Parts: sequence; C-alpha cells; structure tokens
Amino acid sequence: MTALGRHVLIEFYGCPSDIIENNALIEKFMRGAADYSGATIVESVFHHFNPYGVSGAVIIAESHLTIHTWPEYGFASVDVYTCGDSVNPWKAADYLSEKLQAKKTESFEVPRGMVDKIRQFAEQEIEEVKVKPQELEGVK
Amino acid sequence: MTALGRHVLIEFYGCPSDIIENNALIEKFMRGAADYSGATIVESVFHHFNPYGVSGAVIIAESHLTIHTWPEYGFASVDVYTCGDSVNPWKAADYLSEKLQAKKTESFEVPRGMVDKIRQFAEQEIEEVKVKPQELEGVK
Repeated sequence: MTALGRHVLIEFYGCPSDIIENNALIEKFMRGAADYSGATIVESVFHHFNPYGVSGAVIIAESHLTIHTWPEYGFASVDVYTCGDSVNPWKAADYLSEKLQAKKTESFEVPRGMVDKIRQFAEQEIEEVKVKPQELEGVK
Repeated sequence: MTALGRHVLIEFYGCPSDIIENNALIEKFMRGAADYSGATIVESVFHHFNPYGVSGAVIIAESHLTIHTWPEYGFASVDVYTCGDSVNPWKAADYLSEKLQAKKTESFEVPRGMVDKIRQFAEQEIEEVKVKPQELEGVK
C-alpha cells in the first residue's frame, strides 16, 4: 500500500437541470452511490440554495462523497474519497454518471495520504500503516 | 473566468495526535478556517470514530471544506473547494496549517467546472457563466 486513500474528482457536464435541481433526488443518488460502492454511511447533510443549486456531503466510514450542482448550467461537481480495499470510488462515480445523465464526464484519481510520508513524519515508529479499523469493521 | 471553482487538496503530516484526535477542536478549526477564508458557513457535520479519528465536512455557500484525521499516524487530509472571487481557499489552508501544527504540508490546486465545457454541453446558450448568486450575496 502506497497511499491511505483514493480521491476521485468528477465533473458532470450537460446534466438535465430538473435532475440536479432536485435536492431530495440528489441526496438519494449520493447515498445510493455510497451504498453501491460498498461504503458505510455515517451521516449526510444536503442544502438547497435559493434560487437554485444543491450542495451536500455524505460522510462515510471510509471518508466522504460531496456534490455541488449548478442547474442553470447543467453542471455537477462531485468528489468521492475512499480508504481501504473494501470500497471502490469508481463504482460510485459510475453510478452517479448514470443517474445524473451527463452528456460529458471528466474525472481523475488522486492518491491521498502517502504512506512513506506518514512514516517519515510520525511522532513514533509505525510498524504497519493500515486504514482505520472501523473501515474494515463498519461504524461502531 | 476559466473555471467556476478552485479546489485545494492538502495533506498534513506529523500533526500532534492530541490535536487531531479532538473532535470538538477539529470542528472549531474547520469552521474557523471557513470564516478566515471569507466563506459563509451553511452547515457542518463531524463524526468521531471509535477508537480514533475524526471525519467532517463544512458546507459553505461557496462549496465545502472536508477533513479526515488519523491520530495514530499524525496525519490529516483536508480539502477546501471554493467558488467565486470573494473567498480564497489558500487562506483556509494556511489557517489550518498553523492550527494543526503539521511538520510537513503538501498541497495543490485543481480548477473545477471548466467554463468552456459548461458552455459546450449546456442545454441552452449561456450568456455569461457566473458563480452562484448566493455566493456573492450570502445564504438566503
């Protein structure tokens, strides 16, 4: 393992505005994406802006998913950050790609929490760098 | 304007574990970082994991801040995503760098929501791409 986490940044262009304007639907899709990727949902928070746009975050035991939508431009910006082998962030990305019906999707993955740097700068020697225990056993 | 948003990804290595283990302190620092950057806080959610670690998100009118901490490794992983000229994500990054007392900080910025692609794939012609109105006028 070279990094604790995988962070996928996704831009969804050309989404139908009635979908990405719907706060309840967006929350349902984001929680659905978390489930589909194998994540354990801890908490979520969604906000509908006046006059339009949704912002929200789903905290998962394995890190988070976030979304911001601009219905007036058909644009939604999503992040899926996961830790551990039990969850695949690209499954969440694929799920949302289908649900948001984007005409154009652009995405890339960034490794997060480099293990060599964690070891180098930790206060004490670390025998083995592992993802959080609760990421393997679910939220306690 | 070439992009709607600026997304700064930051890794804080070698943080004192008593700081990044403290859920209340982390929430205070994250909300403080949002304030310091000029953002308008909409909602926040923080969770303390058993046996250790904090995950949280602050939804701001201009997008979000998130954090995940591994006190056992002295590591904290932060995202600051902002839209509009009224907020500077690097101010939040600097604020957290001081508060989390990292021995080593690594960060980079990703542009989010490319204006040319928004125009290209929007359902109707867009005269001028602007950040959300509420980003300029605060949350209504």
